[in-house]
Amino acid sequence: MNQHRFLRRTAPLFFTNIRLASQALAYDNFGDPVAVLKKVSIQNERVIKNGHIMVKYLASPINPADINSIQGVYPVKPSSFPAIAGNEGVAEVVRIGSNVKHVQIGDKIIPAVKASGTWTTNAILSEKDVTVIDKNVDDLFAAQLSVNPSTAYRMLKDFHKFESGESLIQNGGNSAVGLFVIQLARLWGIKTINVVRERPNLDELRDHLKSLGADYVVTEEELRKREIMEQILAEIPKPKLALNCVGGQNATDCMRYLADNGTMVTYGGMSRKPVVIPTGLLIFKDQKYVGYWMTRWSQQNFNSTQRMKMIEELCQLRIENKLQLPKMEIIKLDDWKDAMENMSKGFTNAKYVFKFD
Amino acid sequence: MNQHRFLRRTAPLFFTNIRLASQALAYDNFGDPVAVLKKVSIQNERVIKNGHIMVKYLASPINPADINSIQGVYPVKPSSFPAIAGNEGVAEVVRIGSNVKHVQIGDKIIPAVKASGTWTTNAILSEKDVTVIDKNVDDLFAAQLSVNPSTAYRMLKDFHKFESGESLIQNGGNSAVGLFVIQLARLWGIKTINVVRERPNLDELRDHLKSLGADYVVTEEELRKREIMEQILAEIPKPKLALNCVGGQNATDCMRYLADNGTMVTYGGMSRKPVVIPTGLLIFKDQKYVGYWMTRWSQQNFNSTQRMKMIEELCQLRIENKLQLPKMEIIKLDDWKDAMENMSKGFTNAKYVFKFD
Repeated sequence: MNQHRFLRRTAPLFFTNIRLASQALAYDNFGDPVAVLKKVSIQNERVIKNGHIMVKYLASPINPADINSIQGVYPVKPSSFPAIAGNEGVAEVVRIGSNVKHVQIGDKIIPAVKASGTWTTNAILSEKDVTVIDKNVDDLFAAQLSVNPSTAYRMLKDFHKFESGESLIQNGGNSAVGLFVIQLARLWGIKTINVVRERPNLDELRDHLKSLGADYVVTEEELRKREIMEQILAEIPKPKLALNCVGGQNATDCMRYLADNGTMVTYGGMSRKPVVIPTGLLIFKDQKYVGYWMTRWSQQNFNSTQRMKMIEELCQLRIENKLQLPKMEIIKLDDWKDAMENMSKGFTNAKYVFKFD
Repeated sequence: MNQHRFLRRTAPLFFTNIRLASQALAYDNFGDPVAVLKKVSIQNERVIKNGHIMVKYLASPINPADINSIQGVYPVKPSSFPAIAGNEGVAEVVRIGSNVKHVQIGDKIIPAVKASGTWTTNAILSEKDVTVIDKNVDDLFAAQLSVNPSTAYRMLKDFHKFESGESLIQNGGNSAVGLFVIQLARLWGIKTINVVRERPNLDELRDHLKSLGADYVVTEEELRKREIMEQILAEIPKPKLALNCVGGQNATDCMRYLADNGTMVTYGGMSRKPVVIPTGLLIFKDQKYVGYWMTRWSQQNFNSTQRMKMIEELCQLRIENKLQLPKMEIIKLDDWKDAMENMSKGFTNAKYVFKFD
């Protein structure tokens, strides 16, 4: 009997006791990030359970959806409080528990986007919730791989089987996703019409997008001028796909140039206005209007060969220097408040990324 | 040489000369039906070419789309003027040309919906453009079979694979298509929530729709009352399909009760307002918004087994008295002007059908 108890106490044969010391941004309840986030130091004895790993984060971006998660207005929510914020990042594996099969110490991994908390220096994760990626990929790209480049990739693959020379139209051409759409479309022989907002440095932006591979860059105003669009559509076929992250009038303007049987995929709503479809486009032009949410796709296809192929292909393109990053601003965990304030105000010129070291 | 010419002149061996005497409603140019339609008598020597047949129309309905065709604002247009109006009807075959393979004298046929002109007592058609139907089907049902019952049938079959007990929501519950949706859904074990406009004789309409098989009948105002809809959705699952022939606010109200992954099919726009979709329904609820146009489907699937199966199944249901007709008003060709005037004013209480005899 005593011996039996002893054996049960020694169950940690299957576990690994470690000291987890981390710095993190955590919150106790939903609200404005500036008000509810706190930088915390975590120092405690933890057990690495069967199938779990300990990682050291290398870099974690701040996505707009992370802010919405903290506000409690995003469908991805932490399962309990206190919670560590952040949904995306890249980490190095520093310890592994028993029965870990697919991950090794020293591996570079990206976690599943599901409120596991990535704005932290260290974390313990189940190996089921991570994907090992190519070590040669730089941390800045790897940190944002799960969301923006993946969204662009899937939207180009899953809604229309493009043949070379066909075209797409997208608004938010200068958004983080939009920049990857431009680059992947160029690599895959798809022509792009990219709609951007009127702005003071328009020529500079046009040059930048064209240098990435944009075929046409038009402002929202130009999109509404028939003669400008007719000239473009004399050179390329009507778009079979429209990618919409804006909504409102601009989305409707894009629809009018969409081909018969074409599909508009909505993946954002920056104008905070709905998608308005004239009835005739649905009935007589047989256009389809659908939505895309990367988080759902990744959850449903986490270990699929389709997802592994995508991650490998994107990493390879980055290693070959065929994918440029959006403008990044690298910050330390201590700089979080300024970043949150700037993002809450709406428009920021660069994507913030926490780098840990 | 002379002999050769003679042979060419006797080519009518392969044709059949007949005297076509018909009364028809024709027009010379697009415009308001009351202004441009004329009743004409056609008396001429005609040849029934290879593969063609002569038919005597039994009944032809007036569909709203016929009015739009005459106005020139509908995608189905006559190929030349003068043109005979009307797009749908049922006829009896009275003569056949040579090399007619699938049609016999005495057959009951329905023509393809493509501006062939059905508001006429007689016509010559290619056998390729007609479908032979069961002689036992009554003329009033047969005359409208190609459009309204077929639209209801396809929308229930082609956008969601219903399991028994699942549900749909439709606006225009009292429209001609709506009534067939209610009846087919009941036959196939699909629960229906039917939205109608507020009106003086609401209780009578509710009773009528329920007698046809409607599970729930709600007014546009009731649709916006959370407690009413919550009570309904406590009894049946959320609709997987929404059928929209109204657009505007009412379509958006319907969307809010559509299940995740559900589809809204737009087949009309009676409010003349667009379809307005809150972005979150597309992205997070993964709802799909598409259109349906019976005319296109029929053209693309004219001789398909799928279409033949549908026509046979609908005819059989009618013969077994399982499909009731919408309220009809039977008129003679000479009554056309009153009918056009009433339809131009918008709301009519019954569907007009020309009967010829």
